Amino acid sequence: MSDCLFCKIITGDIPANKVYEDADCLAFRDIHPKAPTHVLVIPKKHITSLAHAHTEDAQLLGILLDRVRQIAESEGIAQSGYRVIINSGDDGRQEVPHLHLHLIGGKKLGV
Amino acid sequence: MSDCLFCKIITGDIPANKVYEDADCLAFRDIHPKAPTHVLVIPKKHITSLAHAHTEDAQLLGILLDRVRQIAESEGIAQSGYRVIINSGDDGRQEVPHLHLHLIGGKKLGV
Repeated sequence: MSDCLFCKIITGDIPANKVYEDADCLAFRDIHPKAPTHVLVIPKKHITSLAHAHTEDAQLLGILLDRVRQIAESEGIAQSGYRVIINSGDDGRQEVPHLHLHLIGGKKLGV
Repeated sequence: MSDCLFCKIITGDIPANKVYEDADCLAFRDIHPKAPTHVLVIPKKHITSLAHAHTEDAQLLGILLDRVRQIAESEGIAQSGYRVIINSGDDGRQEVPHLHLHLIGGKKLGV
């Protein structure tokens, strides 16, 4: 998607503070962090939102959650704990229309 | 895990308002809903938290997220939007030590 912010981060047209990358996904720090660790994990394939995924994307979704888990380890928050948030659509307050998983931790989060 | 609340819901020893079930997962309504739709999706396999998952669980994690997406459709909130939350460990405020995905929607959520 040529006009997608996150697709432009994937191609390198827009810079980001990357923390992880492989063939399936990219992870980078949120520019407006809500906690000491706030990383966004996105698929390289453009999927507008979780609601736009298809059952054939299930394997990719699993890879994304597994990478979130691994990045939590490398960020040193696996033991202390963290929150994963996926906002989908308007009611979910999704801000960028490219599926992304927020990994938030490094402090005691609110309920 | 004989002393796990959610394992007891899976076995039927503790009742729950189930909305979906298959070989891999169970979904039921949260007893303290934070929005008109608040469903918990859990794996039938006991995994204490996302941090306790292993890479071989990636396929199962993908199935869980795919089921969340499908349940959002059946709940009628796929278009309006929703939020998926996975709390892991103390900082994440995880309350029950059995991996669960919160599906929350049916109203405009807070940021």
